[in-house]
Amino acid sequence: SSKSSKKISLSAVTSIVDGLKRLYIQKVKPLEVAYQFNDFVSPLLTNSDFDAKPMVMLLGQYSTGKTTFIKHLLKASYPGAHIGPEPTTDRFVAVMSGPDERSIPGNTVAVQADMPFSGLTSFGTAFLSKFECSQMPHPLLEHVTFIDTPGVLSGEKQRTQRAYEFTGVTSWFASKCDLILLLFDPHKLDVSDEFKRVISSLRGHDDKIRVVLNKADQVDTQQLMRVYGALMWSLGKVLNTPEVVRVYIGSFSDKPINKSLTGPIGRELFEMEQDDLLSDLKDIPKKACDRRINEFVKRAKAAKIHACIISHLKKEMPAIMGKAKAQQKLIDNLEDVFAKVQREHHLPKGDFPNVEHFREVLSGYNIDKFEKLKPKMLQTVDEMLGYDIPELLKTFGNPYG
Amino acid sequence: SSKSSKKISLSAVTSIVDGLKRLYIQKVKPLEVAYQFNDFVSPLLTNSDFDAKPMVMLLGQYSTGKTTFIKHLLKASYPGAHIGPEPTTDRFVAVMSGPDERSIPGNTVAVQADMPFSGLTSFGTAFLSKFECSQMPHPLLEHVTFIDTPGVLSGEKQRTQRAYEFTGVTSWFASKCDLILLLFDPHKLDVSDEFKRVISSLRGHDDKIRVVLNKADQVDTQQLMRVYGALMWSLGKVLNTPEVVRVYIGSFSDKPINKSLTGPIGRELFEMEQDDLLSDLKDIPKKACDRRINEFVKRAKAAKIHACIISHLKKEMPAIMGKAKAQQKLIDNLEDVFAKVQREHHLPKGDFPNVEHFREVLSGYNIDKFEKLKPKMLQTVDEMLGYDIPELLKTFGNPYG
Ligand SMILES: Nc1ncnc2c1ncn2[C@@H]1O[C@H](COP(=O)(O)OP(=O)(O)OP(=O)(O)O)[C@@H](O)[C@H]1O
Ligand SMILES: Nc1ncnc2c1ncn2[C@@H]1O[C@H](COP(=O)(O)OP(=O)(O)OP(=O)(O)O)[C@@H](O)[C@H]1O
Ligand SMILES: [Mg+2]
Ligand SMILES: [Mg+2]
Repeated sequence: SSKSSKKISLSAVTSIVDGLKRLYIQKVKPLEVAYQFNDFVSPLLTNSDFDAKPMVMLLGQYSTGKTTFIKHLLKASYPGAHIGPEPTTDRFVAVMSGPDERSIPGNTVAVQADMPFSGLTSFGTAFLSKFECSQMPHPLLEHVTFIDTPGVLSGEKQRTQRAYEFTGVTSWFASKCDLILLLFDPHKLDVSDEFKRVISSLRGHDDKIRVVLNKADQVDTQQLMRVYGALMWSLGKVLNTPEVVRVYIGSFSDKPINKSLTGPIGRELFEMEQDDLLSDLKDIPKKACDRRINEFVKRAKAAKIHACIISHLKKEMPAIMGKAKAQQKLIDNLEDVFAKVQREHHLPKGDFPNVEHFREVLSGYNIDKFEKLKPKMLQTVDEMLGYDIPELLKTFGNPYG
Repeated sequence: SSKSSKKISLSAVTSIVDGLKRLYIQKVKPLEVAYQFNDFVSPLLTNSDFDAKPMVMLLGQYSTGKTTFIKHLLKASYPGAHIGPEPTTDRFVAVMSGPDERSIPGNTVAVQADMPFSGLTSFGTAFLSKFECSQMPHPLLEHVTFIDTPGVLSGEKQRTQRAYEFTGVTSWFASKCDLILLLFDPHKLDVSDEFKRVISSLRGHDDKIRVVLNKADQVDTQQLMRVYGALMWSLGKVLNTPEVVRVYIGSFSDKPINKSLTGPIGRELFEMEQDDLLSDLKDIPKKACDRRINEFVKRAKAAKIHACIISHLKKEMPAIMGKAKAQQKLIDNLEDVFAKVQREHHLPKGDFPNVEHFREVLSGYNIDKFEKLKPKMLQTVDEMLGYDIPELLKTFGNPYG
């Protein structure tokens, strides 16, 4: 059957991600290219999009211990790390695995096809000169990339000082990340307006957010309870999700825990919390894999719907005369076109793209030049969704059992 | 001078409250009576309004330990107290000082002029039969009256079961109370819709609210942190004040603290928290006195403004003809009247009553029958504010130093 002839050989596949990469190139990408999916919805995926390690971003006011936190996990400073009580980290740093210790400037990183940062080019060179990649050989970095960030300052200071759009950048990283850690310390609790804007920029990724109440050993137990309570009080309002965010309370540095203030249970509590956070971090690769499968499936479905719309538009065009008028009519009545396509192909309405955005992009095109419906291509994607992906999950262990 | 002739003799006064009571009767009440302040703004004060002990109301879901909390403070059960894991307290109970142990039914309490509960009559006999006064001789009760309440149930159950307006009653008590304790326990954390309505009924008295996270020794430290965090998370949204509410974490009962779960610091923390709460309770009589002075001054100023408005209205009436038309015009242009009175007497705009409410009450009156301005009466109140009250504070210790 046509099914078996097109099947990818699982024996050559080395992992789920590798399988997805092959499926994309063989089965989804041709459809995306044929119907300009990249112009309408999202750029074509490159190998680096598949190969990128899961990412963890650290955010917080200055001096809350973001850089120290990474040092604590790596048990070593990353190349170019600065730690100190004043605002120290002045740039975004991607801390990644690499054969040698070295720093690569942002402008260079952004043009490297094997790195997942080319999208940052849109923030301009002013941003890229405040971005760098810090590489070092490290077992943990083989599984996770950390994004260290400059501390959030308060008020206008920050916005006038920075030559790029800070929240645009944090939002970009939020969509690429698998986990976002918000760090607080007992003496820097207030969620400044600027920090609120940063948190807003994470919207849509609330499930990735965790909070760390760091340096918890710098206050006594009763104060810690006040501080922690005040933090939850304001976070509840700012994060605005009904589910309570997970907060890890502890002191994440190489210094021993200050027992004079917290007493023995403080240490015990902090150690339990640190263990919990570590196992949350260890879960990331698996969760990241789940997320990628999920996003891959969503993308394949979107590409299919997109192909149905484009080919339907093409079909509605007259053979010889009145093309311009027909094109305008189709653009004007795009809602009806969507409704028709939906009924014809039995597609879920909620999966359709935003009409306004689609109309805008469409008006730059000549519909007559679009491809006709290619049922084989669509069938290939359907088969992939119905057969190849379940097969892939079965081979490498379906995370849903 | 007229000043000294009217001065009350401080030698006869036994306390600030006693002084306020005398000042009210001699200097404010005559003004209120002359200009129908009681119909427009607030009933005349009675002795029991002055003599009432400071009140502390306990609110919370059922079984969070409200009744046990009172038992813990009194080191004895109040007459008629019921304690148990099921919803037990089925009524509002005012736990007060009295020569013997006894319970007085609500219908009887409400008609007793020497008790500050006559206002509850407006909630009907259905409520009064779910209200009682529990008296016993006790040193603590000489300073504070406790209001035990039925546990808040969740959902419709509560509202269909109760034959009276629960939140109306809690709102009434909130205005009379000096402190409102909201009790939670680690297993009954959720702020149900019903409880949210109860909390809303406390609006305007947010400064009186304290929270008790009771039975804190029933979970281990890490769980306690989760529970406490979740509580603050949702309280921040419900209470909706920028200031963080004070939460006391502990276990308020006669049982010893369960050390197996919390460890030694748990006990230490809870004991510190219990001490803090106790000293907050000990502060109540002093704070209650401050609040009464404050409210007394506010009332006197309101009575003065009211007298100015009423007498101004009277002045604007024609001597013989066209009275009905003039009255209607005054009612229609009440905003202008207020503005004129404000300018004429140099009164702060923010202290004026609500125009709509005033208009409504006014339309039931014949303005022509109102009293003319009595400058002596106004002068008496001004003198009281400028001289007698400072003098009273000086004699009995000005709480503001
Ligand atoms: N867990 C901890 N306990 C005590 N001190 C800490 C802890 N973590 C960090 N510090 C100290 O706090 C200061 C700030 O640390 P660090 O530079 O890591 O913060 P940062 O969040 O990266 O700041 P910036 O935003 O300015 O880069 C340093 O002096 C560091 O030694
Ligand atoms: N601090 C505490 N630690 C352990 N158990 C407690 C504590 N306080 C109360 N309890 C138990 O919880 C149960 C409920 O207590 P209580 O009757 O005082 O609650 P309540 O809030 O008054 O309930 P209701 O709203 O039904 O009147 C009882 O079994 C009591 O013994
Ligand atoms: Mg840093
Ligand atoms: Mg009870």
